[in-house]
Amino acid sequence: MEEPVATGHVFIATSLDGFIARPDGAIDWLLAQPVAGEDHGYDAFMAGMDALVMGRGTFEAVASFEDWPYGVPVLVLSRQLVGTDVPARLRGRVRFADLAPAAAMALLAAEGAVRVYVDGGRVVQAFLREGLIADMVITRVPVLIGAGRPLFGDVARDVALDHQETRVFPSGLVQSRYRVAG
Amino acid sequence: MEEPVATGHVFIATSLDGFIARPDGAIDWLLAQPVAGEDHGYDAFMAGMDALVMGRGTFEAVASFEDWPYGVPVLVLSRQLVGTDVPARLRGRVRFADLAPAAAMALLAAEGAVRVYVDGGRVVQAFLREGLIADMVITRVPVLIGAGRPLFGDVARDVALDHQETRVFPSGLVQSRYRVAG
Repeated sequence: MEEPVATGHVFIATSLDGFIARPDGAIDWLLAQPVAGEDHGYDAFMAGMDALVMGRGTFEAVASFEDWPYGVPVLVLSRQLVGTDVPARLRGRVRFADLAPAAAMALLAAEGAVRVYVDGGRVVQAFLREGLIADMVITRVPVLIGAGRPLFGDVARDVALDHQETRVFPSGLVQSRYRVAG
Repeated sequence: MEEPVATGHVFIATSLDGFIARPDGAIDWLLAQPVAGEDHGYDAFMAGMDALVMGRGTFEAVASFEDWPYGVPVLVLSRQLVGTDVPARLRGRVRFADLAPAAAMALLAAEGAVRVYVDGGRVVQAFLREGLIADMVITRVPVLIGAGRPLFGDVARDVALDHQETRVFPSGLVQSRYRVAG
């Protein structure tokens, strides 16, 4: 019997100079964009996802919000969190695990996940390096912030992408969808 | 009498991860794109330029080509080259100068230039920091190369951009034009 396989999918916004957050994690430059009334497709994207993988940074940022925004199971990859308790209000919705990207995907696939939302700069980079990302929706925000947490990082070899579509929004956001080739 | 003013304009291609060249300057990843038959607007852009400013790296790369590609006067900003002779075949077309961005623009404006093509990563970054760039045409190439010479660098404060238009090419290149706000 073949093992079940899950694919990784990215949906993320970056500054025009490639950062997903300032050095301290702030996304004020993103929240300041005049996007009222625009549908960037996030809900439609999420509706197609069976699970979500993120790192500690993203988890701690999101866990600080009043409402937990995710309806799918969340796997937080963190050596630091794995010995700690999931906050009571998130039990059953969040798990901490110290797993490499392929092992995390195998676990989620074994549980029935087919499409996995992969979020956060370091996690996206690690999953890209392991060939676990099928496609990426990247939304470019029209601002240069100069420094911060980059979306992309080292790659072992060039990663060719197939451009699928690009959408432009009145706010100036430019959203492109790429399939990861090979 | 008011001093004449020139504006800086950028037309440049980057990998999806924001590099204009590999660490050694190679652009094989760019030249490998299947762009035959596509008009990315470079000739039309150049036709509107009165002069070109670049750094030593860009100059040395272009000077190694068999044919000198530029019809407009080229100002090479380089402390290292300023004491050296311009190659004989480029005399009258190229000058070396050790000038700060604003002084370079003032010189070109005094000579009658109105629109100046600003090329090369470090030079673009320096002119952006000085508020000397009016607009940028950035062409995203659908490949991640992981490391190299970045288009953008530090900024003193956020640089807001106004998205003007985006064009998509069959090769997968996505070209956006931004006006630098304020």
